[in-house]
Amino acid sequence: MSSNKHTHPKVHMNPHVVRAEYAVRGLIPARADEIKKEIAEGKGAHPFTSLVYCNIGNPQSLGQKPLTFNRQVMALFDAPFLLEDEALVARFPADAVARAKEYLSHIGTATGAYTASFGYDFAREAVAAHINERDHHVQPEATLDAICLTDGASSGVKVFMQLLIGGTGDGVMLPIPQYPLYTAQLALLGGTLAPYYLREKDGWAMQADDLAAAYEQCELEHGATPRLLVCINPGNPTGGVLDRKVMEDVVRFCYDYNVLLLADEVYQENIYAADRKFVSFREVVLSMPAPYSTGTMLVSLHSTSKGIIGECGRRGGYFCMTNLPSPMREQVTKMCSINLCANVSGQIMTALMSTPPQKGDASYESYWAEYNGIFSSLKERAALLARELNTIRGMSCQLVQGAMYAFPQITLPARYAEYNEAQNKKEGRKLALDARWSLELLEATGIVVVPGSGFGQEPNTLHFRTTILPPTAQMERMVAAIRDFQEKVYKDYA
Amino acid sequence: MSSNKHTHPKVHMNPHVVRAEYAVRGLIPARADEIKKEIAEGKGAHPFTSLVYCNIGNPQSLGQKPLTFNRQVMALFDAPFLLEDEALVARFPADAVARAKEYLSHIGTATGAYTASFGYDFAREAVAAHINERDHHVQPEATLDAICLTDGASSGVKVFMQLLIGGTGDGVMLPIPQYPLYTAQLALLGGTLAPYYLREKDGWAMQADDLAAAYEQCELEHGATPRLLVCINPGNPTGGVLDRKVMEDVVRFCYDYNVLLLADEVYQENIYAADRKFVSFREVVLSMPAPYSTGTMLVSLHSTSKGIIGECGRRGGYFCMTNLPSPMREQVTKMCSINLCANVSGQIMTALMSTPPQKGDASYESYWAEYNGIFSSLKERAALLARELNTIRGMSCQLVQGAMYAFPQITLPARYAEYNEAQNKKEGRKLALDARWSLELLEATGIVVVPGSGFGQEPNTLHFRTTILPPTAQMERMVAAIRDFQEKVYKDYA
Repeated sequence: MSSNKHTHPKVHMNPHVVRAEYAVRGLIPARADEIKKEIAEGKGAHPFTSLVYCNIGNPQSLGQKPLTFNRQVMALFDAPFLLEDEALVARFPADAVARAKEYLSHIGTATGAYTASFGYDFAREAVAAHINERDHHVQPEATLDAICLTDGASSGVKVFMQLLIGGTGDGVMLPIPQYPLYTAQLALLGGTLAPYYLREKDGWAMQADDLAAAYEQCELEHGATPRLLVCINPGNPTGGVLDRKVMEDVVRFCYDYNVLLLADEVYQENIYAADRKFVSFREVVLSMPAPYSTGTMLVSLHSTSKGIIGECGRRGGYFCMTNLPSPMREQVTKMCSINLCANVSGQIMTALMSTPPQKGDASYESYWAEYNGIFSSLKERAALLARELNTIRGMSCQLVQGAMYAFPQITLPARYAEYNEAQNKKEGRKLALDARWSLELLEATGIVVVPGSGFGQEPNTLHFRTTILPPTAQMERMVAAIRDFQEKVYKDYA
Repeated sequence: MSSNKHTHPKVHMNPHVVRAEYAVRGLIPARADEIKKEIAEGKGAHPFTSLVYCNIGNPQSLGQKPLTFNRQVMALFDAPFLLEDEALVARFPADAVARAKEYLSHIGTATGAYTASFGYDFAREAVAAHINERDHHVQPEATLDAICLTDGASSGVKVFMQLLIGGTGDGVMLPIPQYPLYTAQLALLGGTLAPYYLREKDGWAMQADDLAAAYEQCELEHGATPRLLVCINPGNPTGGVLDRKVMEDVVRFCYDYNVLLLADEVYQENIYAADRKFVSFREVVLSMPAPYSTGTMLVSLHSTSKGIIGECGRRGGYFCMTNLPSPMREQVTKMCSINLCANVSGQIMTALMSTPPQKGDASYESYWAEYNGIFSSLKERAALLARELNTIRGMSCQLVQGAMYAFPQITLPARYAEYNEAQNKKEGRKLALDARWSLELLEATGIVVVPGSGFGQEPNTLHFRTTILPPTAQMERMVAAIRDFQEKVYKDYA
């Protein structure tokens, strides 16, 4: 056998992969994990004893409890033979038993088989019913054909970005700031970024003129045609909730420019501002006159990871397709068949999220007590966090109207920028200014946030993203620590 | 807003997506689903009342029961509050309770949080321990750092194909016939296929000379450099199990040509031939002399979908990395962080698969009774199927040494080919000859198989793939129906 091949030169890798970045689990969280390990092993000298992970919307990791009813049904679904044990069944509420039996009636006991590529029909029907109720039965109503169950919302994102982006000639219109899954997928597919900036002062809403300008710029400067516009509402990382009027502008733009609208609505249950409510893009599209109602290509994403349910690890979710031409639907069907199916545990969680206990059911009171308890607590923390951050020197934060994040703007003394440059030179790396600030915040306080540069931001502005998820007492300590840190920055670099 | 964009021309899609194919859930299964619906609605005239789905390795859909112990632990893991109810806990075997408590001790009650990108540490440790035992503690032993938990083996395949394949300049060496997930992913990534043929008469083994020739051909004819060699052992769709000597040849080839070896070993527990046993590529690599032991890049895949556990819908699995250079490992870490984490239900199933009940445990006897019952039954069906298929006119089938499939070769009367051409012209489509045969088998008998053309085969040969999964009585009827169908083909087209 020839061994002339065996030069073993530099490691070959796909350059698209090398280019992709994902700040939510990037440099700062990686350093946090190191510190956590050092603390556990009694190594290093850290001025704190534990870390506060505010880098990722992962409610249960910060103490939020799962909704009991859902887990009761899940346990019976996982072990259907338990239903044959009367003494055991008697320990479960009647509606949890009935729900498990109902789900099992559709599939028998084969709760470990691959499902159809789009998921269990009964779960897709539950999702469609939920969507129709949520959208005030706008016509035509959603049916299960429009619904595909996914492993979280992320796998839906991947399907549609892959479907539309074949290379540099295809653009994706992304809000800036955005959730970095989008830029990461774009990099993996080798597509072209067509950024549109959200207006911080307007509660992070977009403007129709900015969309058109971003489209034209993508064509003119990059020779790429935007194929997809991503809209995250409620906003991640911004916490903004869109006005219906703005949403109509977005729909008109997408129709006029023949761009598929990918509506990331995973935070639809997380609305805290009294003057805001969630309106789905599906309801907006279908309520508009033709041709917008009939010709706007829309894919709506939802997930079991956020909301009140917070079941991130279960990887449940779905996408709902509106006005997709049939050649596109055929390709989507094929892509989902290559992916085999979403995990059944996530599928069941998605069905449960879509059909909570109803009035008169045994678990009705306790379910809604748990639900409302979590919701009010999130709402309280959203208000507390923004209010307090606004009292810190060199920091301003929009209201957290929804979702699970604050994205405050920070201003830093000029000498801090010089210090960062010097440090970068010394360390041989190129940390952005907000990454330096976030890293030093971590080293000084144990608080893990993600620098704004990981999401994108207007040039010459600096931000960071923090979740609103730490419990109230912890959040108060956290705000105090950020305040002290920022005061010290101002003192040291004034 | 300008509407000059609004020509809404032909639907734009990524051409790589359009080119991808996945026969396992392709034309024949799609027609089967239509027929199923027609039967349910009392429409159409079909000479059978139910379908036999032999197109996909989905054991529980054909009546195989999940292992009870695993599901008991899963139920308690899903609803940890059940452990506080003593009367309820008393209905579970002590070792299932202990196992659930052990798993929960690592993560608290946050059983719905995102895990680390590579999965729960305790589950990765369980996998590493299992691998070390399986591989006779060959040195250096696997540690959790080498293990990443995935949603089935498929997501591991995607990570490494994406990591190495950036475009047409990058080739993937695939066995022909192969599992079509590989050609589908290759098409999605726009890479170049470098096929190497398995030798049917040698029980579907490969030959080292064929590998080198396939490599050179890819370079010379396509100007592409092979980056990855996929080896499926036990074989899908072939049912072959590789000899250690052949495996050593493969390893030498991969080292010499600097190609990453992707070992798809999801059927490692499915070995039926008395003279065969499973040896992992990891054990082979690490048992060879340097530089093969230290320089061969190996990624080994496993899954909870196959084996005896058969938990396809749970989407559990892992990959194990051996000798990967650190720049590659860094990219893998980043890619997994973009994917967030594998679903926790699959992670738990993977831990359970790696650590069955031990002697002395309450469930030991019943677990192994269930396990051995499933295994002997699979073994019996593997032998029965190959034996019977070999008695059918124009059909020859290699021994099913392992995995879950038979891939018999069929020969058809010359006039059947003419008939297919005429039918294709009439129907305006281009069915391959074996696809026509499979479709007509379906229409006549309700048996769903996948044509050999969906997997690839030597030119001028015809095959189909069927699983060995129908229960024995059903399989006997199925073989009789195939026999009658094939006799009729010979009679009608002699």
